[in-house]
Amino acid sequence: MKVTVSRKAQFNAAHRLYNPNWSFEKNDEVFGKCNNPNYHGHNYQLIVSVKGTIDPETGYVIDMKDLKALIKEHVEDVFDHRNLNLDTEDFKELNPTAENIAVVIWNKLRPHLKSELELKVVLYETERNFVEFEG
Amino acid sequence: MKVTVSRKAQFNAAHRLYNPNWSFEKNDEVFGKCNNPNYHGHNYQLIVSVKGTIDPETGYVIDMKDLKALIKEHVEDVFDHRNLNLDTEDFKELNPTAENIAVVIWNKLRPHLKSELELKVVLYETERNFVEFEG
Amino acid sequence: MKVTVSRKAQFNAAHRLYNPNWSFEKNDEVFGKCNNPNYHGHNYQLIVSVKGTIDPETGYVIDMKDLKALIKEHVEDVFDHRNLNLDTEDFKELNPTAENIAVVIWNKLRPHLKSELELKVVLYETERNFVEFEG
Amino acid sequence: MKVTVSRKAQFNAAHRLYNPNWSFEKNDEVFGKCNNPNYHGHNYQLIVSVKGTIDPETGYVIDMKDLKALIKEHVEDVFDHRNLNLDTEDFKELNPTAENIAVVIWNKLRPHLKSELELKVVLYETERNFVEFEG
Amino acid sequence: MKVTVSRKAQFNAAHRLYNPNWSFEKNDEVFGKCNNPNYHGHNYQLIVSVKGTIDPETGYVIDMKDLKALIKEHVEDVFDHRNLNLDTEDFKELNPTAENIAVVIWNKLRPHLKSELELKVVLYETERNFVEFEG
Amino acid sequence: MKVTVSRKAQFNAAHRLYNPNWSFEKNDEVFGKCNNPNYHGHNYQLIVSVKGTIDPETGYVIDMKDLKALIKEHVEDVFDHRNLNLDTEDFKELNPTAENIAVVIWNKLRPHLKSELELKVVLYETERNFVEFEG
Repeated sequence: MKVTVSRKAQFNAAHRLYNPNWSFEKNDEVFGKCNNPNYHGHNYQLIVSVKGTIDPETGYVIDMKDLKALIKEHVEDVFDHRNLNLDTEDFKELNPTAENIAVVIWNKLRPHLKSELELKVVLYETERNFVEFEG
Repeated sequence: MKVTVSRKAQFNAAHRLYNPNWSFEKNDEVFGKCNNPNYHGHNYQLIVSVKGTIDPETGYVIDMKDLKALIKEHVEDVFDHRNLNLDTEDFKELNPTAENIAVVIWNKLRPHLKSELELKVVLYETERNFVEFEG
Repeated sequence: MKVTVSRKAQFNAAHRLYNPNWSFEKNDEVFGKCNNPNYHGHNYQLIVSVKGTIDPETGYVIDMKDLKALIKEHVEDVFDHRNLNLDTEDFKELNPTAENIAVVIWNKLRPHLKSELELKVVLYETERNFVEFEG
Repeated sequence: MKVTVSRKAQFNAAHRLYNPNWSFEKNDEVFGKCNNPNYHGHNYQLIVSVKGTIDPETGYVIDMKDLKALIKEHVEDVFDHRNLNLDTEDFKELNPTAENIAVVIWNKLRPHLKSELELKVVLYETERNFVEFEG
Repeated sequence: MKVTVSRKAQFNAAHRLYNPNWSFEKNDEVFGKCNNPNYHGHNYQLIVSVKGTIDPETGYVIDMKDLKALIKEHVEDVFDHRNLNLDTEDFKELNPTAENIAVVIWNKLRPHLKSELELKVVLYETERNFVEFEG
Repeated sequence: MKVTVSRKAQFNAAHRLYNPNWSFEKNDEVFGKCNNPNYHGHNYQLIVSVKGTIDPETGYVIDMKDLKALIKEHVEDVFDHRNLNLDTEDFKELNPTAENIAVVIWNKLRPHLKSELELKVVLYETERNFVEFEG
């Protein structure tokens, strides 16, 4: 009898999409205005979901305060009000598409959750575009 | 060829989180301000999803009016404008965490749906915290 | 390592629910005010989700611009500001319930996506009623 | 010391925009796809706001249950699941633009409110287009 | 040249509507299920708006961090996870309707803002019911 | 008899808040993490409202298609996927706070609207922070 518990968070960041192995023209063709060398930015909305059994003592799968603190420490404090390409180690060599950001966040959170808990990450880049990763 | 049909509903209720087998200090440590003995409250947002095959006569998996009526009778009429701890049988002995409320709602609705239909319940306690139960 | 990429879209359409093999009375009994012979309408909100592996060159599962263009060509240009019963081939003989519209949209999009990509369609008929189809 | 009290509601309707004194070509030029002779439709979101002084006995400007009932009787029961052009007296001779619908709703509600209360109507035709009328 | 700056916040509280000078029957007739003696509750959404001239040095009307801190100290820390009737001085003798709560919040914040700034408070009791007070 | 017509739009941009006449320390003290020299970014949500009388021929205050085109040409095409500090003339010498951006947008749109129309601009920097300017 497993329940999924989800917590929403947000971070505001700048980024640029491009592949350093390609010419500027090729990058422009593929990434369009997302390839602006001066960067653009987003309010990223994040939903972190954890699935597991309910602890009969507390009625919790995971304490939401703990989940909130994990997201703050490992995601918000690292990405919020940052330039993803310049200010983070994660995207020094990795293109910060929504897909890659979701995978990076999943990998940051996974080690801090008990192994019997399942983890899913949903990331909204805009109100109309979002991605989902479950490992 | 199965389609999932979902209906949103809402109920406004008071509750308090605590374990009667623990001291007030232990409850305070675990549940923090949710342990306020005078209660606090939420606008609970509920999404009930039913998965099944489309009836070729009607084009429906389930008539949304029937699903709405089931939710009203078995959830809203029981929980809306109530104190979950004091006014309901369900949480006399069960801590009304979002996880437990979702399971209780699932158990209330399950007997009223045909056995070939699958049931999922999503419950938002706040805009940022929500849980999901599929049985 | 698969990621799901989703895009939201919208179309505004008129429709009427009824079964031409039934009497008006039977239709009224089953479909109620949705059976109004002069039609009513909705702002349909659509979420199209595509699941696949991330292309290491681009960091994309699918280019969101391509997905947006597919939805425009095969859904919005066909359904937006139309009467689903009168102006489309799809619902000449098929009752335009949310369930059937979701299946029709899925069938319209499926041939235009690579076979290794999984497709899911979510369709909101109103803020409180929505359906989901994954093939 | 005046407070404004607002209530949200919704109705789903079909409509067509055109001026019967114009040619089809002129209507098409001005109203584009909104001129579809077979109609299209919307989920209209309505916000009715009433401004007045707080009754010290109740703490209410107006009982929300009364405001909800007024909106149901004079707006929802008249417009919901209707074709605005064909099924209502209001738009027999009046083009059902969002602007005109908002004015019509204001005029329907005004006589049922005490004269010392101020009335404002906001009407969303889509998530991105809305209008506002205060008399 | 004045600009209005707004900040959203939230608090979750229990309350009961009744007039201690009335019989239980009269309270029930007027306040219905809101008169439940065991309380019910809401996620109150708050929007605090401050209007003034832009400081040419900072480009701010008011520093959003300061506005956020004022709301936390004077509203959230006082009302969040509380029973408005039992746990606050403000509603010991005042019926905690949305109207009265909005006026109380306005009065709490007004002294902490420079006199040349205008203040408005919007309070959502539910997604569909909200009130507004500008002094 | 005036009606207000509103249109929502969006642009995604990078920016940095700072005053070039101040030391880095002073900027850090005032603008905190918004002073990141590598920029951060937002999904700016924009609501443009135009108030005027209804044209009896069309039933429109302003054709929403024209308002949408004005916003695209004068706001989205200039700010979307740009770095406000580096890529625009407007913020070469002006701090791109939400307040200043709203005033700049108002000034860009005002000359393109008939003088008898009133203009208001609402700008959301995040879901929780927004500003409003009416000239």
